[in-house]
This record gives sequence, C-alpha cells and structure tokens, in this order.
Amino acid sequence: MLFVALKQAALAQCRKYSAMAASNGLVFRQLFEPVSCTYTYLLADKDTKEAILIDPVLEKAERDAKLIKDLGLNMIYAANTHCHADHITGTGVLKKLLPGCKSVISKNSGARADLYIHEGDQIQFGKFWLEARSTPGHTDGCLTYVLNDKSMAFTGDALLIRGCGRTDFQQGCPKTLYHSVHSKIFSLPENCLLYPGHDYTGQTVSSVEEEKRLNPRLTKDEAEFVKIMNNLNLPKPKQIDIAVPANLKCGIQDP
Amino acid sequence: MLFVALKQAALAQCRKYSAMAASNGLVFRQLFEPVSCTYTYLLADKDTKEAILIDPVLEKAERDAKLIKDLGLNMIYAANTHCHADHITGTGVLKKLLPGCKSVISKNSGARADLYIHEGDQIQFGKFWLEARSTPGHTDGCLTYVLNDKSMAFTGDALLIRGCGRTDFQQGCPKTLYHSVHSKIFSLPENCLLYPGHDYTGQTVSSVEEEKRLNPRLTKDEAEFVKIMNNLNLPKPKQIDIAVPANLKCGIQDP
Repeated sequence: MLFVALKQAALAQCRKYSAMAASNGLVFRQLFEPVSCTYTYLLADKDTKEAILIDPVLEKAERDAKLIKDLGLNMIYAANTHCHADHITGTGVLKKLLPGCKSVISKNSGARADLYIHEGDQIQFGKFWLEARSTPGHTDGCLTYVLNDKSMAFTGDALLIRGCGRTDFQQGCPKTLYHSVHSKIFSLPENCLLYPGHDYTGQTVSSVEEEKRLNPRLTKDEAEFVKIMNNLNLPKPKQIDIAVPANLKCGIQDP
Repeated sequence: MLFVALKQAALAQCRKYSAMAASNGLVFRQLFEPVSCTYTYLLADKDTKEAILIDPVLEKAERDAKLIKDLGLNMIYAANTHCHADHITGTGVLKKLLPGCKSVISKNSGARADLYIHEGDQIQFGKFWLEARSTPGHTDGCLTYVLNDKSMAFTGDALLIRGCGRTDFQQGCPKTLYHSVHSKIFSLPENCLLYPGHDYTGQTVSSVEEEKRLNPRLTKDEAEFVKIMNNLNLPKPKQIDIAVPANLKCGIQDP
C-alpha cells in the first residue's frame, strides 16, 4: 500500500510538472509585415509580464504597441537582430509609445541603441532569457537570439527557411556567413525551432534538423556556397538608402 | 532507502512524461497565402507520419506538397473548414500531388468531398485527432476543428483575431454566428490557442481568453452584434464567382 501511495503521489507531482512543461509561462507571438515580408517576434513572461520584441517594423509599431497593451505586458526591450536594409525598424517609435522600453542591438552593427550586446550576453525577461550569438556574414553586427532552453532561435537574416540573407552589401561576406550558420546555428539541438527574419513564401518556421538537411545553399560545401552567393545577381533593396541611415539611429529619422 | 528509490524512479518517469508534454510528437506548421491572406495549417504525428492539412489554397498547393514530402509525412486528409468565397481550395490539386489523400468537408457545406463530417466527428491522424464542431453563421457548413487536448482550435472564418467572418452572403446569419462562437468556441479552455482562417493585419494566433475579452464584435450582446454585422457594407469578394463554384467541386475546375 505504501508502494502504491508513494507512486501515486509522485505521479501526481509528475502530472503537475507535465502541465508546467506544456504551458511554461512563455507568451509567444509571431507577427508579419507584408511589404518587406518581415517577421517580428513578441516574447514575454506570463507571470512577471516582462516582454521583449525582436525586429519590430516602423509601419507596424502601432499594432505591436496595441497588442502589448492588450495582453497587459510591460515591454522592457525592443531588440534588433541587425541594422536592416529593407525596412525601417519600429524601435524608435515603440520607445515613445511604450515608455521605459530600451532599444537593443549589437555593438558591431554601428547603430545607435540604449543597450549594446555581444556574443554570449543574455537578455533577461522574467524567468526567461535570450542568449545573443554573433552570426555575422549578412552584416557584421548580425545576432541570433536563442531562448534559454534552446527550444527556439531567432536567426534574423543569417538563416532563412531554405535560404539565407544576401551577402552583397553592408559588410556582407559569404565565407563569414557560412561559418556563422554552421558553428552557431547548426550546432543547436536538432529540434530547435528556427524563426527567420523574413519569409517570402508564406512559411513561418523551420528547425535545425530541417535546415541542416534541406537548405539548398547551406548543405553545400563552403566553396560551392560562396559561388552561389556571389552569383545571386539580386536587385538593390528598394528601401536601402532610406532604411540604413534611419536604422543607424534606432529608426528615428531626422526632422 | 526504498522510499527514496521509489520516489526517484517515479520522478524519472515524471521527467519522461514532461519531455513528452514539451514535445508531444505533434508536427505543426502555419502557412500563409498573401493574396487572400489565408492561413493553411499542417498537423502531423511525428511517429506515424500521418498528416492533415486544413484549408489549403490552390496557388500554394505545390509549396504545401513539397513541404509534406520534405518532412517525410504521409498526408491522409486535406480538410476545409467551409466552402470558401475568397480563394479556391488546394484540395483537388493536392489529391493529385499526394495520391491517397482524402478531401474532407462538412455535409452542410454542399460541396463535393471524399469524406463528409458532422458535429462531434473525430478526424484521426496518428495518436492525435481533430474534433469537428459545427459553427455555422458565416456559411451553413462552417466547422471549427479542435485538437484532442483542446490546446488549439482552427476556427476558419467563424472567428478571426479581433474579428469574425462576414455574414452577408452564402447563408450568412449574424444571429447564428453569434451563437456558434459563444457556445462552441468561447466554451473552450481560456488558454486554448485560436488559429484563424485569415488575418489581414499580420497577426498569427490568439486565445479564447483574449477573444472573450478583446474581440470588438463578439464581446457585445447579440442585438448589438447583429447590428454591427448588418452594417459592415463590405465590397463583394473579388473571387466569389470563380471560387464558390470551384470549391463546390473540391477546387477542381471544369476544363
């Protein structure tokens, strides 16, 4: 009887743990901006209400601020993965809409922000944190943000679903990008979900296992990858001459 | 010692359950079609590989079939929430691309399919199943698909994020829709995630708690809701005269 009672008590405890695992208190939202096909990510701690937004877009700042208020969250950080060339960041406007929020970017980006982060730094929100991994190659300052339990990573433009960011402007270097993805992203657990900075085909998420097996560029060897990247012949991004100078100043344009 | 050993064994078992809860073997993908702003959902059992696609879109059938093949899945059902007026279903083409796949729709939709389902029916894929809930009002045949553990529901056009499907054509009836949402969707657990058939603002998901508190139409009383819905004055959907006849035949157009 003692045996059974003990086992039952431990299993009841077990069910409690299971419920916690199923809903570990992370609020997570993927948001989309259709002109530049940019994904913005909201992460928050359900209990402390502390929230972080990754890669907000200027044109959607009002939407994002409203959602954050509606969910009763307290946005403490607006972080960029890098200095974008295809859209203006919503960071500057969000700081005005949600006072107290701090902008975050890597020091290597060369852009202005309240907080500069480096390889290995952790950005805490409630009981969760994002680890910053330096993944240059698309730009010098590109970061990949990895959730503390390594269940999800936000790759910006270093790695896209079945693709990757271009390497033909803003300090772009295919060799560097190849090394970044292989050493810092493909080294994550196979089931780690990968959330990209953009998608142009209507896909929302991939995984380390999938990209290691199916990415048409990054499954190649380094020399072949460099050849592919140097022959993409892409047009210049429409917004680059407006977006980059604005993003160097946190998305706030001079009057 | 027996006490400790037993407790440890049960806790080890517990950790195993927790891992299962954290990654319970469900493959889940949200996919987007930007012209009609339609969401398609892929659900599958990681172990048996059996997969179901909800609301595929004709123009994205090749993308969806490729993803299913890439993930090594066996698509057994292509299900529609209803007979759509704004896009042609991908079901007919997917049946050709993925032989063995069966089309599914409610009998009340009036549309052709391999399998007709009704209120309370369960569509099994591996160890998971979707429960069909009849949620008419946008059309007579609208279904909401609820995952077996009630952690997510696919509402089609019955409920959208902070909105709902229109009720001014195809058997639309605001009173019926109001009753459907309140009795069949708002009765789900508060933390049940709601995945809509469309979103026009770049949002991807909501929850029962959120919509019960924040939906600007469905938080009103029935009379007010009917008044709102009868005064939307929306333009006729561009594709309706092509989409509805095609969707009545599983998306396969006559030559």
